[in-house]
Amino acid sequence: MIMKEIKIMSEGDNYTAIDLGEFDSLKEYSYLHPKLNQEIPGKVFIGEVLKTTGAEISLQVLPPDTEIPFLHGHRKHEEIYIFLKGCGEFQVDNVVFKIKEGSIVRIAPEGKRTWRNNSNESMTFMVVQTQAGQLDSHYIDDGFRINEDVIW
Amino acid sequence: MIMKEIKIMSEGDNYTAIDLGEFDSLKEYSYLHPKLNQEIPGKVFIGEVLKTTGAEISLQVLPPDTEIPFLHGHRKHEEIYIFLKGCGEFQVDNVVFKIKEGSIVRIAPEGKRTWRNNSNESMTFMVVQTQAGQLDSHYIDDGFRINEDVIW
Repeated sequence: MIMKEIKIMSEGDNYTAIDLGEFDSLKEYSYLHPKLNQEIPGKVFIGEVLKTTGAEISLQVLPPDTEIPFLHGHRKHEEIYIFLKGCGEFQVDNVVFKIKEGSIVRIAPEGKRTWRNNSNESMTFMVVQTQAGQLDSHYIDDGFRINEDVIW
Repeated sequence: MIMKEIKIMSEGDNYTAIDLGEFDSLKEYSYLHPKLNQEIPGKVFIGEVLKTTGAEISLQVLPPDTEIPFLHGHRKHEEIYIFLKGCGEFQVDNVVFKIKEGSIVRIAPEGKRTWRNNSNESMTFMVVQTQAGQLDSHYIDDGFRINEDVIW
């Protein structure tokens, strides 16, 4: 199977812009899991192509009636799961709760986590990984306006 | 105007799970900009409620024919814009490019950025802010399996 490549739309000294395509077409990507040597269709990591330095991000479409059959933890990374479409269940430590479009879950590195799509529709979600404890401020405190003209 | 509150679905020592509702209902949230003392309907920051320590995340629905009329930069934060629905244009430094569902843009702190929805449909997107330069590894390198039973 040939993996679909991520398309770079525009790039400059201070940015990279990619086009993944519509989220329903995420199933065309696949990720070769380096430890399992197993191909995971519908999963794509974007951090390397985007040249991110603060977060890794992956997107995945999970087919109906599919589960991750094991728990996992992290050494240093906090994870945030953002559910974009469909519904299912999520487990952290010994708690199971339902997830659907608009559900967002933050998990500390030591949280033991897994999830499943126990519905008959596809489930689409995004995962943001960052170094836990490194954010210095929430909201807009880090930003500032620049008094130069917008081009359009 | 009363701001819609973010609903916490489940919370434990190692996690927080929220329910924002379907993305089309993001317009019910609003954000009071502390510097402008101006209410921004359709924008919600989730980091404080989620108790994130590595990333701030906001979501926003921008009405048709609406632009951010100024450029902004950041002191220490890298930003990643993920476009979920609709289309528009994005400017970084002196380059303008089109954005739509599946477009993702990574911008270094010093990049001068703005965006607009120049279409006749709403545009929905998410912004991830992190400390630039803090990520130690991409992909799955930070994760590890845990040999304990999944509950379901």
